[in-house]
Amino acid sequence: MRHIRSLPLLAALTLMTVQAPLSTLAHAAAPRAVEYKLDNGMMVVVIPDHRAPVVQHMVWYRVGASDEVRGKSGIAHFLEHLMFKGTEKLGPGQFSKIIARNGGQDNAFTGNDSTTYFQSVAKDRLPLVMDMEADRMANLKLDVKQVETERSVILEERRSRVENDPGSQLDEQMRAAMYQNHPYHTPIIGWFHEMQKLTREDAFVFYRRYYAPNNAILVVAGDVEPEDVLKLAKSTYGKLPANPATLRAERPTEPPAVVGRRIQMQDARAGQPTLVRHYLAPCYAKAAPREAEALDLLLKVLAGGSTSRMYKALVVDQKVATSLDGGYSGEALDSGRIALFGVAADGVKLSDLETAMDKVIGDVVAKGVTAKELELARNQYIASYVYESDGIGALARRYGWGLVNGQSINDIEDWPNRLKSVTAEDVKMVAEKYLNSKASVTGWLEPPADPAKKS
Amino acid sequence: MRHIRSLPLLAALTLMTVQAPLSTLAHAAAPRAVEYKLDNGMMVVVIPDHRAPVVQHMVWYRVGASDEVRGKSGIAHFLEHLMFKGTEKLGPGQFSKIIARNGGQDNAFTGNDSTTYFQSVAKDRLPLVMDMEADRMANLKLDVKQVETERSVILEERRSRVENDPGSQLDEQMRAAMYQNHPYHTPIIGWFHEMQKLTREDAFVFYRRYYAPNNAILVVAGDVEPEDVLKLAKSTYGKLPANPATLRAERPTEPPAVVGRRIQMQDARAGQPTLVRHYLAPCYAKAAPREAEALDLLLKVLAGGSTSRMYKALVVDQKVATSLDGGYSGEALDSGRIALFGVAADGVKLSDLETAMDKVIGDVVAKGVTAKELELARNQYIASYVYESDGIGALARRYGWGLVNGQSINDIEDWPNRLKSVTAEDVKMVAEKYLNSKASVTGWLEPPADPAKKS
Repeated sequence: MRHIRSLPLLAALTLMTVQAPLSTLAHAAAPRAVEYKLDNGMMVVVIPDHRAPVVQHMVWYRVGASDEVRGKSGIAHFLEHLMFKGTEKLGPGQFSKIIARNGGQDNAFTGNDSTTYFQSVAKDRLPLVMDMEADRMANLKLDVKQVETERSVILEERRSRVENDPGSQLDEQMRAAMYQNHPYHTPIIGWFHEMQKLTREDAFVFYRRYYAPNNAILVVAGDVEPEDVLKLAKSTYGKLPANPATLRAERPTEPPAVVGRRIQMQDARAGQPTLVRHYLAPCYAKAAPREAEALDLLLKVLAGGSTSRMYKALVVDQKVATSLDGGYSGEALDSGRIALFGVAADGVKLSDLETAMDKVIGDVVAKGVTAKELELARNQYIASYVYESDGIGALARRYGWGLVNGQSINDIEDWPNRLKSVTAEDVKMVAEKYLNSKASVTGWLEPPADPAKKS
Repeated sequence: MRHIRSLPLLAALTLMTVQAPLSTLAHAAAPRAVEYKLDNGMMVVVIPDHRAPVVQHMVWYRVGASDEVRGKSGIAHFLEHLMFKGTEKLGPGQFSKIIARNGGQDNAFTGNDSTTYFQSVAKDRLPLVMDMEADRMANLKLDVKQVETERSVILEERRSRVENDPGSQLDEQMRAAMYQNHPYHTPIIGWFHEMQKLTREDAFVFYRRYYAPNNAILVVAGDVEPEDVLKLAKSTYGKLPANPATLRAERPTEPPAVVGRRIQMQDARAGQPTLVRHYLAPCYAKAAPREAEALDLLLKVLAGGSTSRMYKALVVDQKVATSLDGGYSGEALDSGRIALFGVAADGVKLSDLETAMDKVIGDVVAKGVTAKELELARNQYIASYVYESDGIGALARRYGWGLVNGQSINDIEDWPNRLKSVTAEDVKMVAEKYLNSKASVTGWLEPPADPAKKS
């Protein structure tokens, strides 16, 4: 609703940097989720966690911005907003008000591949939440005036998040340049001129096609017993009919990468000159065995945080950057990406920062990583996997993201073991394969050279 | 068929550079085409020209590569090839054989917005040609084996025209980077990996939807009388039923341009380092009054041929380029483009060539063109319009391109008058508006720095 999941640069890069006591590592591979399937095809996943008497309830629809038809960009996200406008039973805005009145919180987010609604509530309120969420899965009611008003809201959201944020504009431009054929090139929030034309009917067409129990995954984490959740699910979601017409159109795939692309943006609102480099990479669900895990480890060694090679080289030793980060994002249905991000130190030209960055990249491609680096990166990841610093919210999201993007519960829970099996050779191989300049986009963002001249 | 209309760089740029005696200018605005509409909705345009006893016969379908659905890129062009595979009456390949046996020539081309079949024959063979062309408009017959074989042909066509031609690859990449939302970003010939999967059924779906008399324009130029052609058209095309389902899907439009893009390609097959600059511009049918004509004149003054400003500055005076050309292409349904093209002189870096090019551009944006330059450019265009150096083929193409891209016969024939009405202020205005770096893509093509290193 108010959040939009657009894989923003820094959010993606700072994921999982929490350190954890290594003593918790022993639990790493213990399976914890239980999976059911309702008769109408809805998947139900329960992750018992009794640390506190609360639950996180999430419904993940297997549909996102990349399923929109041409010319209707933004409809997935617009519908997500409109899902708070009421049903036959509930008036506009009542959904969130009732959750709040019951001491809970709720929100939603839209991604390229999925749309998610979630609530955190005291465990005794779970039946209420499931009843309301099942209700709006089938009985959405929209009045034309509310649709008009909400369209102003999403347009304003775009203005403030994209048009008024040069970093976000650069990211949007880089994504458009990276994907030449796949709909990931279109912004999740939509192109402004298309958002302006979205109608109530557009929202309903999308809703009727994709919002159905057989296209949804229910994830409940917290102080619950799996069988109790199953019973509740049967008496709420289980009563809704499946929609046999729910079928994602096949998405076009990318042609082979031919040449890197560059975007050099000058904007008076830009702060220190900033360099961003993206490389196309596979996603978890489509990568060859151990490739995605090796990419996680590679990026941790290369650019993840202040102990990384690139941070040490550019920020500490050469002092050409004041900030440096990087990571691999593999949670997607069709494609992932590697991102590197550096802010130039005072007086340093972006071309020089780029040369320095490319030198560190060239080195890891040529020589790979050391056994010690690999071990350190692995332990950092496994620790943060186990530590669950964000509690049941993070836990539910992990399962939801994985499942909605084509992984199985076993894939998700086995991740630490797969990380352990990655060798230094695997890491070198993915460095050679994916730190490929032909499949890259390089972005520069800086203020105009002459301060009197507006960009 | 064997030609593909992909607006190749040089073809687009060297159009209309023929000089003509100014004495022919008097005929410039004389209307010559006669237009009819058949009962089934087919448009018939006849351009009598009695200089020789021959005719050019063309059928223009209002469908092209930009009407393809996602994932089926190349189907418009593939179908164009398959249209030579026979009908109920004619065996595979017979169409062209019969034309040749009758002393004629035939071919076809596919564009973003249209697909065209044409024949030049002696005038007494026109009935034969119209009979055969009408036959394949409705009765195409395809056998699976022929489809397989022809798919190998188009794949080989792509290999030789794109994969084996770095200049063409650069153009494809620049087009993909220029258009962020409109299907013009997809190559007309298709992406290789999608072409590989095109089937007989895909071709028929496209054929049945778009190949119908109400979606076609017949253009006949040459030694004919309009009424005779109309009579023939009625007895051939006129017998085919209209297809009411023929309806182009609305095409998405571009978001506002935010930032220029750069593509720097190194390829061992590249010759001298080459610089290409594209700017997004309106097309003739969608430009504001006099804008497209002003763009034609601007580009003629700026970069059209060896008398242009940029040629004189870069090739003659500064000697930083050995070749220089440029032009505006406005013959399209949704968008046009400005293209500039320079080959670096020995030892000149592309960055220096680009700086020199940008200086000439900056100058014309700041100061516009002189009355004398404008007059010279105008006379060159009007002379070539009148001269018709290519005979009836060029004449028929001019009408076909204009009509299929949304112009009227009056628009087409009135072009010289509109050119005359363009003022120096109009030219300055379009220079400021469209030589806009935010809406540009800059391409560099050069051999790798180290000859031992493959790109």
